[in-house]
Amino acid sequence: MITSADNDKLKTIRKLHQKHWREKLELFAAEGEDLVAAAERAGWEPEFVLRSGADVEPALLNEVSVLGSGTRVIGVYPQRWSRPGGRLMVWLHGVEDPGNVGTLIRSAHALCDGPVVLGPGCADPYSPKAVRASMGSVFERPPARAAFEELPGRRIALDPRAELDVRGVALAEQVTVCAGAERRGLPEAALAAADDFARIPLRPDGPESLNVAMAATVALYELTRRMTAHA
Amino acid sequence: MITSADNDKLKTIRKLHQKHWREKLELFAAEGEDLVAAAERAGWEPEFVLRSGADVEPALLNEVSVLGSGTRVIGVYPQRWSRPGGRLMVWLHGVEDPGNVGTLIRSAHALCDGPVVLGPGCADPYSPKAVRASMGSVFERPPARAAFEELPGRRIALDPRAELDVRGVALAEQVTVCAGAERRGLPEAALAAADDFARIPLRPDGPESLNVAMAATVALYELTRRMTAHA
Repeated sequence: MITSADNDKLKTIRKLHQKHWREKLELFAAEGEDLVAAAERAGWEPEFVLRSGADVEPALLNEVSVLGSGTRVIGVYPQRWSRPGGRLMVWLHGVEDPGNVGTLIRSAHALCDGPVVLGPGCADPYSPKAVRASMGSVFERPPARAAFEELPGRRIALDPRAELDVRGVALAEQVTVCAGAERRGLPEAALAAADDFARIPLRPDGPESLNVAMAATVALYELTRRMTAHA
Repeated sequence: MITSADNDKLKTIRKLHQKHWREKLELFAAEGEDLVAAAERAGWEPEFVLRSGADVEPALLNEVSVLGSGTRVIGVYPQRWSRPGGRLMVWLHGVEDPGNVGTLIRSAHALCDGPVVLGPGCADPYSPKAVRASMGSVFERPPARAAFEELPGRRIALDPRAELDVRGVALAEQVTVCAGAERRGLPEAALAAADDFARIPLRPDGPESLNVAMAATVALYELTRRMTAHA
């Protein structure tokens, strides 16, 4: 039973709150029974797991928790990265909000067979907020990292200004949906090299665009539907 | 020019960080030029607007900001509430995350003609996080409040266990999509009284459900598409 805040495992968890330590150690922490159970189901070997009252004094675990009081368990795991692949995947550029990245990892896991592929400027998918928002999908379908030029298949750029809507865009054996940050959208190089452009059809009197995680989720839903119908 | 933190307007903004003050004063604050511009475009009369350097010393505005340093403007507005209505709307129960509520207000504004209707246990749509996540849609399409029994039209309960998927569910002149909280789902009374049940079609080997704002957005996208096609 850990009874001192000077313990190395507690120190490691504290470090993993910070991105540069996550990158350096290539580890991350997952808090709560649901996430630790999801890691186990997906067959991940933890570096260590600390259970409140069993492995560590409850007050000490609460101190290193990002959720605050009442944390029952924290697991620490090695980061894993997929490669781009599958019939349908999604690429993100400049999506800085960890909630959006994590939620989309969950959506992709639910809707398509490929991973979320992170381009430049995206939030760390192994940050506490992103891991939490993924609801465990980060263990089942770890994200990938790639530049736009490395993406396989037909690259469809989501762009609210596109003429075609996602229902009409041409498909292929392999498709990557590409989505950019709020306001700035996709970078010029990606727009220039994309194979096609598509928008989510919206009401004319509403906002110009959906939240990026919403737009990408709707696109995955629609394209999965069409790709399955034509399979 | 306001030069003292004791100023009544600054005190009001500080109070509006808290839900019970928002309810008592029936006001809320919107931070940033985009949101204040959205309010103006939608024709909302502010109680007051404070611009950094013009109406108030920058350091004093930063002190009452929820975003922190660099805030250029904060507007304070009276809360408005719509009534349930439109051909298609969405009802939420127990959705406690203000980001989900705000993002869905934006999605509904983009995809359907009715408001987001808040049932019991939902986050305050006029909290700083929800207002921000709505990206100004809260001004164009203010949310409504209603119990399940008060909802008009055909009430379709989103439920991952439903047999029918949203593509097959029967429509009507007026439809309300009903969505419950993560894990707990809709309350028994709503499930018992719903006119139909529908799920978002997901992969068999993925998570049981999408995030509630994602699921509701996909449902609005799909039902709008079907209702427009049959109009």
